[in-house]
Amino acid sequence: MYQHGGDIYGTPVELDFSINVNPLGIPDEVVEAACNGVRVSGKYPDYACRALRDALAEAEGYEKEHLIFGNGAAELIFLVCQAVRPKRALVLAPTFAEYEEALQAVDCKVEYVHLRKEEGFAVTEEILRVLETGYDLFFLCNPNNPTGEIVDKELVEKIVSACKAQGTWLVVDECFQEFLEEEEQHSLIPKLSSYDRLCVVKAFTKIYCMAGLRLGYLLTANEGLRTKMERLSQPWRVSIPAQYAGIAAIQATDYLEHTKEVIRLERAYVKEGLQAEGIRCFASKANYIFFQEEEGLKEALLEKGILIRSCSNYVGLDGTYYRVGLRRHEENTRLLEAIHQVKKERKEHHG
Amino acid sequence: MYQHGGDIYGTPVELDFSINVNPLGIPDEVVEAACNGVRVSGKYPDYACRALRDALAEAEGYEKEHLIFGNGAAELIFLVCQAVRPKRALVLAPTFAEYEEALQAVDCKVEYVHLRKEEGFAVTEEILRVLETGYDLFFLCNPNNPTGEIVDKELVEKIVSACKAQGTWLVVDECFQEFLEEEEQHSLIPKLSSYDRLCVVKAFTKIYCMAGLRLGYLLTANEGLRTKMERLSQPWRVSIPAQYAGIAAIQATDYLEHTKEVIRLERAYVKEGLQAEGIRCFASKANYIFFQEEEGLKEALLEKGILIRSCSNYVGLDGTYYRVGLRRHEENTRLLEAIHQVKKERKEHHG
Repeated sequence: MYQHGGDIYGTPVELDFSINVNPLGIPDEVVEAACNGVRVSGKYPDYACRALRDALAEAEGYEKEHLIFGNGAAELIFLVCQAVRPKRALVLAPTFAEYEEALQAVDCKVEYVHLRKEEGFAVTEEILRVLETGYDLFFLCNPNNPTGEIVDKELVEKIVSACKAQGTWLVVDECFQEFLEEEEQHSLIPKLSSYDRLCVVKAFTKIYCMAGLRLGYLLTANEGLRTKMERLSQPWRVSIPAQYAGIAAIQATDYLEHTKEVIRLERAYVKEGLQAEGIRCFASKANYIFFQEEEGLKEALLEKGILIRSCSNYVGLDGTYYRVGLRRHEENTRLLEAIHQVKKERKEHHG
Repeated sequence: MYQHGGDIYGTPVELDFSINVNPLGIPDEVVEAACNGVRVSGKYPDYACRALRDALAEAEGYEKEHLIFGNGAAELIFLVCQAVRPKRALVLAPTFAEYEEALQAVDCKVEYVHLRKEEGFAVTEEILRVLETGYDLFFLCNPNNPTGEIVDKELVEKIVSACKAQGTWLVVDECFQEFLEEEEQHSLIPKLSSYDRLCVVKAFTKIYCMAGLRLGYLLTANEGLRTKMERLSQPWRVSIPAQYAGIAAIQATDYLEHTKEVIRLERAYVKEGLQAEGIRCFASKANYIFFQEEEGLKEALLEKGILIRSCSNYVGLDGTYYRVGLRRHEENTRLLEAIHQVKKERKEHHG
């Protein structure tokens, strides 16, 4: 059974909190650019994404040649596994399920480092000891999904060293970095040249709310890996609308500023609202809130037209864990009211 | 070096005859639908492409569950190779280069059945003898690219039987079928249930001129294969704009009628025009013309702002073979005039 967030096609809902994309919606200039892209889609896309590559490298200070683009970050997660073909890999538990699916697709044995509720699901120094056993590959999601917890900056550097000592490929998913508070943002991209088995995955999907357009990228200083990933996939991975949208998104700096402000306010608002209901929220430093509550909340909210993400199918979690993506203020208010209602009905029912 | 058609991003040209998509351009209703798709691309795409699947199956009489959609036919060509992992495969020479690239990506040994100029590059009964040696997989492009030759209907059925006798996977690329004259169209789709190692690849790319949007599909009665292909790739392969565009395209029946008429007329016009210049044209029964002419024609036309496809990098061909995609009448006239000019200049130069 399919259990990702955002599957609103089987059972339409009024408000979808099960995905964690930017609540501001796709920027107008991105819509316009993508539509311009549609109009010239009689041509093949530029397989090398040259204009997009130049614009992104320029804006972010990336090395142009470190970039490989894909049909969403998910494609690159599968592709890096197919290129490396690890035999034994490590993932966090819980974390984004796609890593494990991509690893299993190449018949890799997947092991978990279990994050503990008592430690707020934080990654601790224990990871260094685990990495000493010499994995072929380690997927690190930072901030982690669904917990919204970030890995301490010094620990991240120790993880890089530990992987380097063992020759372990380190694939860091930084798709949610831009949603963090300024002081918590730290990327491994500046360190790419220091370790040739280090990859960073990023996406336009989340931060520019363009999940339906599919645009992600991976950065690595490893030319051999990039060549292998290109060789394992078709040349025209990124559509013209997605390439045009990406270029427009890079220029939408006001939108990014506004996003940071909205996320900061709504994160505090929803967290406080849930806590006021006696619900325990975990770190939740990104654009989504991870919390624990009695089973059945998802079903109860669905009856009110609201979809949230049950985390019961994440390794290491059970049916009492949930994730909600932050939406706009009025929508978040509706969520909190609905949860209040559910809790009240339950109390009456049990009382 | 990159050598596909349609690479107009490195050296912009006025008229691109190097690709072979529908000369009528992307239909207006498809553009409109794709733009509507862009506007709702804050959501994830439907991973199962349910609405598109229903519409296509209904319109074409396909079995709904036989379908697997991809980010263009090219993604499915790579994916089928990764799912089957053949050790030794057969392709035509010449044929679309992507089959060989996809096979080599899984370290498959690729062998060729060389089509002969003396036989107009037609597939002959010789193929049956070659298939007796027991390949793991055979890619058949019908009509073939770049030759535009089709395989005789009875021979296609014999090929299916020969593959069946050896347990050879048969992947038939029918992306150009719709451009054939009515009486020459014949698809293996109705035969899918008769052989569970038979796959048919189709695309919206060519016939609806939407190469930049990326939408292809593969049909097979083999549930195990479909499951494996899904498992080896991300769930969200097809963007929302591509799904919306596909649904609109299926309804554009007038466009298809008009296409058949235009292709019929322009095929004859360009073929006659080239022959009048003393150029030998081969079968060319689809929406492109395959011909032989002195080396250097591509470069000479590029100086006039016209890009054609040199076939020098196709296995079995040399720098004297070319392919031009049919375009609209005025554009085809410009091509013929430019070729006339080049031939005249050469004659003067050599004379």
